[in-house]
Amino acid sequence: MVAFGGNALLRAGQKGTYAQQLENVENTCSQLVGLLRSGYNVVIGHGNGPQVGNAMLRHEGGRKVFGLEPMPMDFCGSETQGSIAYMIETGMERVLAREGLDRKVVSLVTRVEVAADDPAFQNPTKPVGPYYTEEEVKGMEGTFRPDAKGNGWRKVVPSPKPLNINNIDLVERLAREGCIVVTVGGGGIPVVKDGDGHKGIEAVIDKDLASALAALRMKADCLYILTDVPKVYINFRQPSEKALDTMTVAQAREYLAQGMFGEGSMAPKVRAGIMFVEGGGGECIITEAGRLNDPSAGTRIILK
Amino acid sequence: MVAFGGNALLRAGQKGTYAQQLENVENTCSQLVGLLRSGYNVVIGHGNGPQVGNAMLRHEGGRKVFGLEPMPMDFCGSETQGSIAYMIETGMERVLAREGLDRKVVSLVTRVEVAADDPAFQNPTKPVGPYYTEEEVKGMEGTFRPDAKGNGWRKVVPSPKPLNINNIDLVERLAREGCIVVTVGGGGIPVVKDGDGHKGIEAVIDKDLASALAALRMKADCLYILTDVPKVYINFRQPSEKALDTMTVAQAREYLAQGMFGEGSMAPKVRAGIMFVEGGGGECIITEAGRLNDPSAGTRIILK
Repeated sequence: MVAFGGNALLRAGQKGTYAQQLENVENTCSQLVGLLRSGYNVVIGHGNGPQVGNAMLRHEGGRKVFGLEPMPMDFCGSETQGSIAYMIETGMERVLAREGLDRKVVSLVTRVEVAADDPAFQNPTKPVGPYYTEEEVKGMEGTFRPDAKGNGWRKVVPSPKPLNINNIDLVERLAREGCIVVTVGGGGIPVVKDGDGHKGIEAVIDKDLASALAALRMKADCLYILTDVPKVYINFRQPSEKALDTMTVAQAREYLAQGMFGEGSMAPKVRAGIMFVEGGGGECIITEAGRLNDPSAGTRIILK
Repeated sequence: MVAFGGNALLRAGQKGTYAQQLENVENTCSQLVGLLRSGYNVVIGHGNGPQVGNAMLRHEGGRKVFGLEPMPMDFCGSETQGSIAYMIETGMERVLAREGLDRKVVSLVTRVEVAADDPAFQNPTKPVGPYYTEEEVKGMEGTFRPDAKGNGWRKVVPSPKPLNINNIDLVERLAREGCIVVTVGGGGIPVVKDGDGHKGIEAVIDKDLASALAALRMKADCLYILTDVPKVYINFRQPSEKALDTMTVAQAREYLAQGMFGEGSMAPKVRAGIMFVEGGGGECIITEAGRLNDPSAGTRIILK
């Protein structure tokens, strides 16, 4: 199981043209060649932070300019699953052809169930979508908070824990047959139980946690969490900075408690690693996207 | 193989709130219960006319209001595959639970290959997306034409013939195992061969033709094309109007040549039926969505 960041596709600082996104995705896909050559079956999870943000802005732009009904965040998330999977299929197909590798790529729209009574719903913390004025948010659905920098008010949504991944049994089977499967895009479309079915809910499921859960359910050998630094660091960007080759679950917990890892960057990756390793999974490696094939790179999270 | 219209989900005349769309999709899904109870394996293709139109407007709104880079039509189509599949999964799951039916629903992001030298590319005819002024379209990519009603200039895209459906073998296998599979959304994301891979292209693949091709490749017993009238008519809405119970391929061709069927409504459905039946498929039935289970409804297209 390999978890891509949403930034691997739509980079901060780039204008985000279609050509740039396709180039980024192809570069990211090419990092998987080593795994594929080694005979691994590969499932890809991916983030959608920048993409779902843009989708929400486009819905707001569509409302303002054309009077279109804006759709909620779960709907926007499902849009990004379609578009990101499409770009991954396109990029991966090129990489496979270039490398002479014969694998299918298949992408599933994936709902992920969270608990309606997840404590996260009591305290939504993740700001998403456009900035509004205080006037505008009156009467709008959801929780809104003013931005600390004074840019305006933004919707805040909870980040509940993933409980169940729809069709993960199918994902596993297709992967074990050699298909490269794209799933849990953006952490999955968040749904809660509703009568005999499920309903969508405005929330963000951490994509690394969703990928860790997917990896556990599929009994994956290894969970790779790709990021933009070669290793996990303690005292990051301080004189005493130290790169970690391995880290036990107990150490990881302690570092987390000490606030060693940035929330919204390394902390959720480490938590996902703990979840996978402690849950009986194999190895978790947090590494730089470009160094997936470099055994000296990356930080391994081990049980003991 | 059942082809839903995009209008079955997002209805003309409705505001198109999320609740309305979910209600429409659940109603449409409930029409499949009879087929499922009869033990049929079901693959769903669906249109995306209103949805991809809205997506393109949202990209334009995002550009105008937030300066976001608008994405091309193939990207917008992939967004609608994600969102429509998500709503179909949600609605179908409710219907299955209510009816006590045990089926999985699985949705694939689906690229459909068209030929770069398809004659349709010489003569793009399908107007899509926002209206622009003559000034605005200067320097924009693509072909633009002024609207006959004077609303402004719109992009026109070709409607090439579908040649290959990515992963259709997997779709068939999953369907034959009993999964309800959603595929070829909006006729599929149109791609052309490009080097060793494929690249997206701005075009609209007719969703009935794509569904007919999917049905042929899967050796489906039956292609149902759902519409908003119970049968195919000749001399439609004239005093000599006549509903057809069956129509041979030869008759269908003659009626098409006589202009009996509206372009953009019944004509493409009849052409898809001809393609399926003539290509060695089973039965094609064009019928009203609500009367899928009514053997007296619908028009059968037969070989001879």
